[in-house]
Amino acid sequence: MEVFSNTQLIIITILMLLGGEVFTSVLGLYLSRSNFSKQQTKENRVASNYHGPTKPTTFSGLEIDQKPPNLDLECNISSSDNDQSLKLNSIKCLAYVVFGYFLVVHITGSSLVAMYISLVPSAREVLSSKGLKIQTFSLFTTASTFSNCGFVPTNESMLAFKKNSGLLLILIPQTLLGNTLFPSCLRLSIWVLEKITRKVEFRYILMNTREMGYSHLLSFAHSCLLAITVSGFIMMQFILFCSTEWNSGAMDGMNSYQKVMGALFQVVNSRHSGESVVDLSVISPATLVLFVVIMYLPAYTSFLPLKQQEAEVVSGTDQKCKKQRTSLVQCLLLSPLSSLVIFVILICITEREKLKKDPLNFNVLNITIEVVSAYGNVGFSTGYSCKRQLEPDNLCKDAWTGFVGRWSNMGKFILILVMFFGRLKKFNINGGKAWKLS
Amino acid sequence: MEVFSNTQLIIITILMLLGGEVFTSVLGLYLSRSNFSKQQTKENRVASNYHGPTKPTTFSGLEIDQKPPNLDLECNISSSDNDQSLKLNSIKCLAYVVFGYFLVVHITGSSLVAMYISLVPSAREVLSSKGLKIQTFSLFTTASTFSNCGFVPTNESMLAFKKNSGLLLILIPQTLLGNTLFPSCLRLSIWVLEKITRKVEFRYILMNTREMGYSHLLSFAHSCLLAITVSGFIMMQFILFCSTEWNSGAMDGMNSYQKVMGALFQVVNSRHSGESVVDLSVISPATLVLFVVIMYLPAYTSFLPLKQQEAEVVSGTDQKCKKQRTSLVQCLLLSPLSSLVIFVILICITEREKLKKDPLNFNVLNITIEVVSAYGNVGFSTGYSCKRQLEPDNLCKDAWTGFVGRWSNMGKFILILVMFFGRLKKFNINGGKAWKLS
Repeated sequence: MEVFSNTQLIIITILMLLGGEVFTSVLGLYLSRSNFSKQQTKENRVASNYHGPTKPTTFSGLEIDQKPPNLDLECNISSSDNDQSLKLNSIKCLAYVVFGYFLVVHITGSSLVAMYISLVPSAREVLSSKGLKIQTFSLFTTASTFSNCGFVPTNESMLAFKKNSGLLLILIPQTLLGNTLFPSCLRLSIWVLEKITRKVEFRYILMNTREMGYSHLLSFAHSCLLAITVSGFIMMQFILFCSTEWNSGAMDGMNSYQKVMGALFQVVNSRHSGESVVDLSVISPATLVLFVVIMYLPAYTSFLPLKQQEAEVVSGTDQKCKKQRTSLVQCLLLSPLSSLVIFVILICITEREKLKKDPLNFNVLNITIEVVSAYGNVGFSTGYSCKRQLEPDNLCKDAWTGFVGRWSNMGKFILILVMFFGRLKKFNINGGKAWKLS
Repeated sequence: MEVFSNTQLIIITILMLLGGEVFTSVLGLYLSRSNFSKQQTKENRVASNYHGPTKPTTFSGLEIDQKPPNLDLECNISSSDNDQSLKLNSIKCLAYVVFGYFLVVHITGSSLVAMYISLVPSAREVLSSKGLKIQTFSLFTTASTFSNCGFVPTNESMLAFKKNSGLLLILIPQTLLGNTLFPSCLRLSIWVLEKITRKVEFRYILMNTREMGYSHLLSFAHSCLLAITVSGFIMMQFILFCSTEWNSGAMDGMNSYQKVMGALFQVVNSRHSGESVVDLSVISPATLVLFVVIMYLPAYTSFLPLKQQEAEVVSGTDQKCKKQRTSLVQCLLLSPLSSLVIFVILICITEREKLKKDPLNFNVLNITIEVVSAYGNVGFSTGYSCKRQLEPDNLCKDAWTGFVGRWSNMGKFILILVMFFGRLKKFNINGGKAWKLS
């Protein structure tokens, strides 16, 4: 990453800010609000032209996602009208809250990073030795961490800061706030705002989660279970990571506190962010396999008991209709996991010669890590080491590129496809239902 | 396997015959028949004591899996009676058919094997050099192939017969008839018998697949789809295997016909039988990854379009009730795949030292093959080669044991658990439903 100039880094920062999931979701909310308000104007026009007895067919042309309003009495019209405008205001409110959340995290985060670097000489030295500006670095890192891009302006990712536990501590919450814990924290923010301002819109948002049509806003129970699941995963990984890597080469030269913080940072980043304080190629296979699983899991994976899921299915009748319509497409879709296995097989085919000649660098686990990391948009890589070659090649030079840098062009192209596939995973999450395993 | 005497081999043969899935399912049919006939006697007794007007409560004590018979008219009693005795006879018939199928395949199979070995000198020489009797070998191999144990009386499995394509051709159908294609072939046999004998019981079995309560008997559509799926998998594997291994070391010294037969035998055996004509450790990783997937899939995996599955769910109301009752247990169950990943991680932990020192023998792919092979009760193993050690150990001696033979005791114990888990997989196939990936 050090080949980029300051201006280039700023451009990348802007792209990361604009392309992040939270920011794009605000645009989605804005669009859905203006759509909704157009529909409402239409509806009002119909209602004002309407004077005869109730005919259920009158509203058949409207595509509003709600129960048809009962127009038997004048007061009902206005109450339905009120309801609609409340919903409209709530969507507007939600958009403001999400945007505010986005701004607060970025401003606070980058200020904290900048403050840490100005105050701690060792961190400042790293930046000055690489010719990086503090402001650019802090904004870039915050934007990248929050939107889970995993880029850091240094070549060696966060490895250069592995002893700066304070910096890691500042970045850990940013990773969580921008990704796995976003729904839980968003709901908490709205709840706090409701308690402070007592505005009816916030109450409406909290009570009508589904009606908001905002996929990052989950019900109370779901948000809690999500937070519990995320903590559970972090805890589990942390225990395994510490127990296998505490005395291994991965954390050499760090004291106990630094090891704890490094391990925590690493396991939090194994879900989607992909910033690294350790060299993944020296990590034990047990931990790597767990990383593969964790990277594979979508951001909002949660433990949801059966009843909750069934209730959701029953209440989502329109979803059900959609399902029946797309059943043919769904029949032909493969499950995400099968698709990933096919990608791994394809890459094993394109890289077959290297798998044979250079088995310590090119093995199925490393390829799987690269593929699943691309699918989960994490960015972890085991890298490539000339030292691990069985038949040493004198021309080989170690470089700061990921493992994929040593693949053939065809292999790289397949990995690009995997990354697209990973970004579009929500359209494929229900694939493979036509297969019966029994 | 060559340490076993002739008597010991015969005892193992008997165990394989008695423990195979098809034979035990005949016992299951016999038990369900005698259960059912007891219930019928009870029911007749109730019916003969019964003279008053119809009360729907009369039959509440009976646990018969059918609509309560309508007893308003005498003729209805007898028609219902007829129906019951027809069902009873059909179950009896089905048990005879399955047992007949079992006998025919074993007698024909072992005779063909014995005939081949007597006629072909190269095969006869292998047996005489190892001191094996033709009768024992042919019966043992047939029983093992049909019940998918994957044992062969020779140490090197079928590797000794890799050029005896005729023998492989005799064994391929036995593997399929005893496992993946059993439901399809059973249904076909019943259909043929019905066409020949025109017996009403056979027609009843074909028309009332579900009422038979025999899990190996599938509906017409399901049987066809199963056969298509099995053929599709074999075709896919065959193409990949031939394209990656045709010129590799795995099939050295074989002519084109032998290679085709060897490849077909190997891919058919990758689902559950586990007899091998090639050394798996020299197979390309792409093929090995596909083998892992194929070994993981349960025997009756089939491509079933959505509607069929939904219909099955709707008709199986008692299953639904069962589901609700066990929902708590199901919530806590992990999916088979997650459990396997946990087992792999545990074995990576128990073998961590060897994974570090001897990475060409001990790598995650080989461990995964061993675990999934144990789960699918296949028996494939990449073995262990002293040549592959990075730090040669002079005391190391190659042996005919699988890769697991070099694991620690704890690792072996975990693999035993995996094998049990694999045998009981049908109780866990719906696990992990409480997890929502989105």
